[in-house]
Amino acid sequence: MTSSPPTIGVGMIGHAFMGAAHSQAWRSAPHFFDLPLVPRMTAIAGRNRAGVDAAAQRLGWESAETDWHALIDRPDIGLIDICTPGDTHAQIALAALRAGKHVLCEKPLANSVAEAEEMAAAAQEAARSGVVAMVGFTYRRVPAIQLARTLVADGRLGTVRHVRAQYLQDWLSDPESPWTWRMDRDRAGSGALGDIGAHIVDLTQFILGRELTQVTGRLATFVDRRPLPDGGTGEVTVDDTAAFLGEFEDGVLGVYEATRYALGRKNAIRVEINGSRGSLAFDFEDMNVLHFHDGDEAAETAGFRRIVVTEPVHAYVGNWWPAGHGLGYEHGFTHQVVDLLRAIAGGAPAIPDFTAGLQVQRVLAAVERSEQTRGWESVAGPGS
Amino acid sequence: MTSSPPTIGVGMIGHAFMGAAHSQAWRSAPHFFDLPLVPRMTAIAGRNRAGVDAAAQRLGWESAETDWHALIDRPDIGLIDICTPGDTHAQIALAALRAGKHVLCEKPLANSVAEAEEMAAAAQEAARSGVVAMVGFTYRRVPAIQLARTLVADGRLGTVRHVRAQYLQDWLSDPESPWTWRMDRDRAGSGALGDIGAHIVDLTQFILGRELTQVTGRLATFVDRRPLPDGGTGEVTVDDTAAFLGEFEDGVLGVYEATRYALGRKNAIRVEINGSRGSLAFDFEDMNVLHFHDGDEAAETAGFRRIVVTEPVHAYVGNWWPAGHGLGYEHGFTHQVVDLLRAIAGGAPAIPDFTAGLQVQRVLAAVERSEQTRGWESVAGPGS
Amino acid sequence: MTSSPPTIGVGMIGHAFMGAAHSQAWRSAPHFFDLPLVPRMTAIAGRNRAGVDAAAQRLGWESAETDWHALIDRPDIGLIDICTPGDTHAQIALAALRAGKHVLCEKPLANSVAEAEEMAAAAQEAARSGVVAMVGFTYRRVPAIQLARTLVADGRLGTVRHVRAQYLQDWLSDPESPWTWRMDRDRAGSGALGDIGAHIVDLTQFILGRELTQVTGRLATFVDRRPLPDGGTGEVTVDDTAAFLGEFEDGVLGVYEATRYALGRKNAIRVEINGSRGSLAFDFEDMNVLHFHDGDEAAETAGFRRIVVTEPVHAYVGNWWPAGHGLGYEHGFTHQVVDLLRAIAGGAPAIPDFTAGLQVQRVLAAVERSEQTRGWESVAGPGS
Amino acid sequence: MTSSPPTIGVGMIGHAFMGAAHSQAWRSAPHFFDLPLVPRMTAIAGRNRAGVDAAAQRLGWESAETDWHALIDRPDIGLIDICTPGDTHAQIALAALRAGKHVLCEKPLANSVAEAEEMAAAAQEAARSGVVAMVGFTYRRVPAIQLARTLVADGRLGTVRHVRAQYLQDWLSDPESPWTWRMDRDRAGSGALGDIGAHIVDLTQFILGRELTQVTGRLATFVDRRPLPDGGTGEVTVDDTAAFLGEFEDGVLGVYEATRYALGRKNAIRVEINGSRGSLAFDFEDMNVLHFHDGDEAAETAGFRRIVVTEPVHAYVGNWWPAGHGLGYEHGFTHQVVDLLRAIAGGAPAIPDFTAGLQVQRVLAAVERSEQTRGWESVAGPGS
Repeated sequence: MTSSPPTIGVGMIGHAFMGAAHSQAWRSAPHFFDLPLVPRMTAIAGRNRAGVDAAAQRLGWESAETDWHALIDRPDIGLIDICTPGDTHAQIALAALRAGKHVLCEKPLANSVAEAEEMAAAAQEAARSGVVAMVGFTYRRVPAIQLARTLVADGRLGTVRHVRAQYLQDWLSDPESPWTWRMDRDRAGSGALGDIGAHIVDLTQFILGRELTQVTGRLATFVDRRPLPDGGTGEVTVDDTAAFLGEFEDGVLGVYEATRYALGRKNAIRVEINGSRGSLAFDFEDMNVLHFHDGDEAAETAGFRRIVVTEPVHAYVGNWWPAGHGLGYEHGFTHQVVDLLRAIAGGAPAIPDFTAGLQVQRVLAAVERSEQTRGWESVAGPGS
Repeated sequence: MTSSPPTIGVGMIGHAFMGAAHSQAWRSAPHFFDLPLVPRMTAIAGRNRAGVDAAAQRLGWESAETDWHALIDRPDIGLIDICTPGDTHAQIALAALRAGKHVLCEKPLANSVAEAEEMAAAAQEAARSGVVAMVGFTYRRVPAIQLARTLVADGRLGTVRHVRAQYLQDWLSDPESPWTWRMDRDRAGSGALGDIGAHIVDLTQFILGRELTQVTGRLATFVDRRPLPDGGTGEVTVDDTAAFLGEFEDGVLGVYEATRYALGRKNAIRVEINGSRGSLAFDFEDMNVLHFHDGDEAAETAGFRRIVVTEPVHAYVGNWWPAGHGLGYEHGFTHQVVDLLRAIAGGAPAIPDFTAGLQVQRVLAAVERSEQTRGWESVAGPGS
Repeated sequence: MTSSPPTIGVGMIGHAFMGAAHSQAWRSAPHFFDLPLVPRMTAIAGRNRAGVDAAAQRLGWESAETDWHALIDRPDIGLIDICTPGDTHAQIALAALRAGKHVLCEKPLANSVAEAEEMAAAAQEAARSGVVAMVGFTYRRVPAIQLARTLVADGRLGTVRHVRAQYLQDWLSDPESPWTWRMDRDRAGSGALGDIGAHIVDLTQFILGRELTQVTGRLATFVDRRPLPDGGTGEVTVDDTAAFLGEFEDGVLGVYEATRYALGRKNAIRVEINGSRGSLAFDFEDMNVLHFHDGDEAAETAGFRRIVVTEPVHAYVGNWWPAGHGLGYEHGFTHQVVDLLRAIAGGAPAIPDFTAGLQVQRVLAAVERSEQTRGWESVAGPGS
Repeated sequence: MTSSPPTIGVGMIGHAFMGAAHSQAWRSAPHFFDLPLVPRMTAIAGRNRAGVDAAAQRLGWESAETDWHALIDRPDIGLIDICTPGDTHAQIALAALRAGKHVLCEKPLANSVAEAEEMAAAAQEAARSGVVAMVGFTYRRVPAIQLARTLVADGRLGTVRHVRAQYLQDWLSDPESPWTWRMDRDRAGSGALGDIGAHIVDLTQFILGRELTQVTGRLATFVDRRPLPDGGTGEVTVDDTAAFLGEFEDGVLGVYEATRYALGRKNAIRVEINGSRGSLAFDFEDMNVLHFHDGDEAAETAGFRRIVVTEPVHAYVGNWWPAGHGLGYEHGFTHQVVDLLRAIAGGAPAIPDFTAGLQVQRVLAAVERSEQTRGWESVAGPGS
């Protein structure tokens, strides 16, 4: 007879969109994956009592706190899950790590390189005591993306030449869409660049297994002022769109575009990679599919293969449904907590760690500098 | 202050693939939908103690029984969820309905028309006491399919002329794939016809809001014997594939094909409908998308629209994630229990009910008769 | 020094849509292909002087006749190209063959099996004197279709199980579209069945390299009467749509549908084939592409390949443009005359010959009989 | 009775790939379009007698010259068609214009801005005498591209925000592909930038009806030396790939990429445009299709429409085949000569003229400067 695996108490801070996605992940993971450590949805924190109580009920948490410090103080909580806006990530993560709690932190890691550096240093320090810190670039956990990385790592693409990546949304296409705090630089840090550009920077670096070293780009704000709910207009102080060119350490050329103005594209994350032996193409609008061109095929029958990534042999897939029964957006979050719990239990590395989150932050900062200097900026450059 | 909604105890029988899908639905529904009645995962039944205990643990049920009758006897259970093979549906459902329990029964409703008739009659009888019975044609709950039905019902297709539907799988393409009980007519009832053909019959009748009245078809078994695990071979006594033509009450012409031999198609459910004002196309391999051609568009810019059915305005979608963040296979099951619970609470009709399940059974039986008679058979014909 | 190849005078009868397509082929072929026999566009025939003179001018023919017998009598004409409606094919072809002229005859070969039989017999007789007769199933000459046939012939699909084929048009979707002679059985022979159904019968038999032996189908006329130009309505005496099931000599199961009511599909010829080792899919709406699933690929990276059939290695392609520069509808006609001229010069078989055209006619006749008998009909059956 | 239209003698210089494409256009145009001026394929020029004689025969020209000056001197030639490499365009075009001949010149207009300026000035001068000069950006004549321009001009896209364009080929993916003169800067001017980047610059400016004003980019050469036919290696002195960001006069943001290393993409010209009211997407791999998202559609049924641009109502299409019968690569060349002949006859403007060709040249030059300065460059800047 087998004994049950140990449990770990989770404390989650924030209960908006990301909080709901994380909750579904904590709840689902134990029912589909063999876990060395079983999560308990111990407590959730939010700023006001009525809101956080309702969230605990709706999202399925055992208790609720109105001060996130309380989660860190609780001995029944071993893991802090940060789902708040970026301007609070640093203080929460630092406190948690110093208290010896494992941390899962939503992306982007922080609103500035300085904060991210402090967090990465703290995570490295904590790692010496076996404390694990992970940043939530969840799109890495899409099975098709895992397959993409495997193909690159296995050399199926040969020498990589090109990556082109786009993250296209359209919720600001209409100039009359209302102003929100996401258009305020003081609170949001940046606009499309940090919100969605961060994802394609991380995704492409992950798939390629290498890093961007220099960039030059253009940030644009197409609509300067937007209607406020109570009449009048508010100023938009972040970028509506970010486009940039990038170069990787070994000469791979990257072309990136992140925008909230691509009318008709709701959440289109597209990545294409070309190498001397093969090419890949992915679009999150068809997230269970990876297109792969194998350059070794005979010319007569060569072509991009539409791989439906729903076979048991594909990463994570075998734990869900039979072949052909696709996964959805939320499953990446479940895979994320599975990987995190395995890392805490010692069976796997914690990827992506805070150092990886910091590196993405440096890329974003370099793009912002390039908008000022109108030239190329080193990712490792001054002020980074 | 609002009071909590009442709860209902659920007892589920069976814990294979369908049991896992249903469990995820019972668990998830209360966290995403406002329910008038909250399900408790009270008990699960299976045939042997070790298996059912492990399943209860893995799938998240509070208790486990080794005899399904025990579920029906338990006063803390108000709803029986039948996830067993088709040859046991009738006895369980009849016992449950007679005991005043609500019933959710997996498809196909039964292995014969006679059984299905008895079940439908019992369900109609039970309905007089407010007992609800529903059959699990879960693909109806895919948001893109809901939109398809709405467009037809709203007259956007005008007079419908054609429906063509295919359910393509490939797990028997290889003649060396092993024999399983699914190839035994005594146990499985039929092969591709009942297993997957049933789905496209139900789906198309649902979208069109009308019924097939006569059919003629061809059942084929491409590989007569398959390897047994212990050496030797077993006889295949069911159909490998079913193709049939059908006519609807108002002259719509249907062309159907269900097969386990379409190499490369894992779970491709395709439906196309053509009318005098519009056309639709759906493929479950891209399940968050519906293609719609609006015949009222100007010739210069007319074309099939690729509608990404992930907007808050689409059925069920607003309860999940923001626009563009697609759902997966499993979400249909959650929608199913949401609709069932609402029906039990009196706020909505129970669709599809057992009468609808019976009608699908009659279509399948008529296809089988046509294979014998080599002619057209009425769905309401003798022996149906 | 090389001498110029000999020439052959062509006489074409008919100058509507098909006449224009054939003219472009005769004109283009010598400039892209090395021909053993160079065509001269010697004369065109039509029924009235003004019309045929204008056609000769517009389509580029050296002279014009108002009686097709004149073409057959002319000694400077060695090849008769029949582009008239089906009810005149037999008499023209028989006269031409008996006069020792080579013949290219548009499809369908004739309006009845009896006529087709007489034509096939005459062609076989003429073949003994080296006279060549070919029927114009031009879609065979699309490079992607040639590749499909090659893959089947090379065994890349293994044992073939399924073929599904559709020819979808929409020009009758609107019930107010006017009546034309194509809706008159006396003149057109049949409707969708003979006009477009003939193409998918030929295409699939060609790709598979085997023949349909029995069929059962349904012909439907959705709109009985249509507006006449001068007011009033005319009766529609042909089928609007034809759907049928078919069985090939070795058990391959076919599902066919031809319709003029698939709103939004202008000229969608779709063919899918599934075998034990591979699958194919083609759609003429994307005519330069063939989708191929190779069952020998590893499960992790298997998928339908989108082969862009524009490489020099593909049939006919190397004579046109560089890789990636696609061909259009009309190029099949050029390939057809190239193959015909090579057959006449003795370097290649004349495919498809009149016997092949007759066999298609028999399939169509069997489908029509099955509409009457409501059962399966042998392609070689009575009256065929 | 109508009199025949006047004729114009054409003299073509060059008989490689472009010469063949132009020849097919001159030959086909009169048979499909009503022309105010009918072209005669009077003479072709090439450098050696055997080659040019064979070309005249193969491509269908009445006579052949070994010195292009002879064409300009011939009184029976009214139009010079320049299909030679870029380094000879200027001298031929200037001579032709000064002799009062109309000119069609292949793209890019010249190998330098200085040459292009001289040509544009000469063309403006000649225009005063009714002489027409056109540059061969033939992709403008694809019906789907014409529709794209119309939709933008009609305001269907509202305020345009984004354009992203890629021209992807793969013939240099393999580092062992041999060296050719196209890799020699002295002869080819530039690599991917001028050869294929020029097309997407022109296409996007044409569709948008506005011009790029500043750019910054990156040119890369992935493989420095390539094998020579006779052993040894040759140096690659042009760009293998060009990626650049651009800004239009009114703030539209452009992202461009042209490469010969996108393995699996043979001739993929992709253009996407996003505006406040609509979006467009085009891919030359599916050249008869334009995708259009109409932002005015209801959210429930909004989506990118796949417009099959083969209706009689679409530009040029009505002169070819019935709806649904697609065109190929070569048809754009026929449309080009149709438009040119109409311009010469006075019925239409000559678009794109040499001034438009010059402007594209300035964009390319600015991209090259930006590679040196590592910053943004004005299209109208110094040295342009």
